[in-house]
Amino acid sequence: MTLLDRADTGAVARLTMNAPDRLNALSDGMLAELKAAFDALREDTAIRAVILAGRGKAFCAGHDLKEMQAGRQSEDAGASYFDDLFRRCSTMMQTIREMPQPVIAETHGIATAAGCQLVASCDLAVAAEGTRFGVNGVNIGLFCSTPMVALSRNVPLKHAFEMLVTGEFVDATRARELGLVNRVVPPEALEAETQALAETIAGKLGTAVKIGKQAFYRQAEMPLDQAYDFTGAAMVENMLDRDTNEGISAFLEKRAPDWRQ
Amino acid sequence: MTLLDRADTGAVARLTMNAPDRLNALSDGMLAELKAAFDALREDTAIRAVILAGRGKAFCAGHDLKEMQAGRQSEDAGASYFDDLFRRCSTMMQTIREMPQPVIAETHGIATAAGCQLVASCDLAVAAEGTRFGVNGVNIGLFCSTPMVALSRNVPLKHAFEMLVTGEFVDATRARELGLVNRVVPPEALEAETQALAETIAGKLGTAVKIGKQAFYRQAEMPLDQAYDFTGAAMVENMLDRDTNEGISAFLEKRAPDWRQ
Amino acid sequence: MTLLDRADTGAVARLTMNAPDRLNALSDGMLAELKAAFDALREDTAIRAVILAGRGKAFCAGHDLKEMQAGRQSEDAGASYFDDLFRRCSTMMQTIREMPQPVIAETHGIATAAGCQLVASCDLAVAAEGTRFGVNGVNIGLFCSTPMVALSRNVPLKHAFEMLVTGEFVDATRARELGLVNRVVPPEALEAETQALAETIAGKLGTAVKIGKQAFYRQAEMPLDQAYDFTGAAMVENMLDRDTNEGISAFLEKRAPDWRQ
Repeated sequence: MTLLDRADTGAVARLTMNAPDRLNALSDGMLAELKAAFDALREDTAIRAVILAGRGKAFCAGHDLKEMQAGRQSEDAGASYFDDLFRRCSTMMQTIREMPQPVIAETHGIATAAGCQLVASCDLAVAAEGTRFGVNGVNIGLFCSTPMVALSRNVPLKHAFEMLVTGEFVDATRARELGLVNRVVPPEALEAETQALAETIAGKLGTAVKIGKQAFYRQAEMPLDQAYDFTGAAMVENMLDRDTNEGISAFLEKRAPDWRQ
Repeated sequence: MTLLDRADTGAVARLTMNAPDRLNALSDGMLAELKAAFDALREDTAIRAVILAGRGKAFCAGHDLKEMQAGRQSEDAGASYFDDLFRRCSTMMQTIREMPQPVIAETHGIATAAGCQLVASCDLAVAAEGTRFGVNGVNIGLFCSTPMVALSRNVPLKHAFEMLVTGEFVDATRARELGLVNRVVPPEALEAETQALAETIAGKLGTAVKIGKQAFYRQAEMPLDQAYDFTGAAMVENMLDRDTNEGISAFLEKRAPDWRQ
Repeated sequence: MTLLDRADTGAVARLTMNAPDRLNALSDGMLAELKAAFDALREDTAIRAVILAGRGKAFCAGHDLKEMQAGRQSEDAGASYFDDLFRRCSTMMQTIREMPQPVIAETHGIATAAGCQLVASCDLAVAAEGTRFGVNGVNIGLFCSTPMVALSRNVPLKHAFEMLVTGEFVDATRARELGLVNRVVPPEALEAETQALAETIAGKLGTAVKIGKQAFYRQAEMPLDQAYDFTGAAMVENMLDRDTNEGISAFLEKRAPDWRQ
């Protein structure tokens, strides 16, 4: 990996996008490294929480526009390249949701266009005060149509549409009100606060978190009765786990659980 | 009934969970009494609004963990018991939505796990200042997968996921911001304010409320065009009611309606 | 047109409901003129943003109750008239969403029942301080079942249900918190601020806004993977537009775009 660094602290993996001179743009290379990193992490049973951060002035400024424009130099004027690019990007975003471990976006500076989509696609997000979020592709004639998929599943419709059609930024405090961000912290506390949140999650029973996260997004798309059938089965599976039995017994006996995982 | 009290004041029924020593846990007995009470109320045309409250220090602390652990003493290690338990619980929660009368959760102390699901499943909720809400099963290794069904239909995705995966509580004020609670009142005013809200609703035309409530959740799960076809039919039905005719005429003539219901 | 005025300023069309003595009620005539105006605007490529305002004390007070009551004078007691009325009204509301141009509600005074639905159905809404919003049909025995379709797609479930079942109003500030309104401005600034927002939108590339708006509501009703397939195709179409190519190039070269549209 050359564009993405990984560093583990106990059960917490920290991925850092490392292309600060391009504001961590989601180039072909960055998309491939993110996909590869998430694919490796989903199989890594030692990791229980993942942080995604960016080096330099920005969290992520979206697609790599120079690379996209270069893609027009083909017989079809870029059509098949763009189709493939958006597929790769959308697949990477969906991979985050399909991972067993929660992924936390650690955001600072700016998160724009597909960079804002990346924040929306993570399970949780922490923002440094002053971070600005925008889906501003409309300003250059490219409406943020794929970013809107993730955005509109985080932010109320009218507020999401306003961001998309005006291209205007919202700050971290407003992003939290809108549901795009969970926590806003001083810039100097960003890394420590995000790490603390990750460690809180890593301290839970991994099986339970995995069952719960995977059920969360699926049930959200179901009618109520199907959602209950589906999550009822998840609860039974969870109850039959040896460590869950131990966790409940320990709670009833007012002692710490002896979890084997 | 021994675990659930019912007291009616005019057209308002007040159900009080009465197992304070177990923090009104949703034991097999409590679930059965709640289901029976809601089934009776849905047929009771004299009742136009229902309040659900809890006696003692807590509104409701969720499933009865001792009873669940005892359920493991079977050949299948509890699998069929748990499957049945979650089905009964989910059915009770859905019964609240299917009732013709609005149901208001009157909450104080704590509402945790399936107790928080109960709040989310009610049509409306009033909270005493200081009430804490959490879906904290993850702390003992049991992710709140069935509670998340109701929670994620009340609270924005990232904030719901944060509650589920950290197990942390939110207070009443935050619960209102998140959409889990409608009103926050001083503890000493909780019962009176909830009663006043119930009486406001009970003062409306029962037929109209019934038509509207039943359409509300169904249309929310439909695509826009189907939702309009469906609710258009509900409006026609409502318009053809004798009392609605009278209600509109009275409004136009600036007099009180003479409703027969 | 006699009930609806249209005035264009550059690429911004301003529609003003002009039945102040009836609080701009959505009579048969007003519905027909709104539908006709939106149908004309959707074909008008010179217009890139639309404002909908109301003359007099109110933005819009909903259906025309006198006309509705007169509709009962038929063999079927109004059934087929009401069915047709709600279909025409729902079609008009959906036409707003299907237009290529964003539609901004400029609201003041009151917006009630189907008038509140009209605000919810517009893509964006600006409100004068002091504007009150309500779905108060329940007060006269007619639950706002069709308005709830638009309302519940803007406002969190419990808060939407509270408005519907109590008939109580929310003010402009609360409406913004709830997601019904984008911006709240002093009454004397209402027209200028709404015009400024419309001009911001009109300054964007029309093709991009059209592609984006039409994808926005469709993807919102799809499962995540379908939404990504659908919006990915919208992005490719957008990228292949000549003016988008120019817009991105201009951005990379730090100059103003030379858009032909």
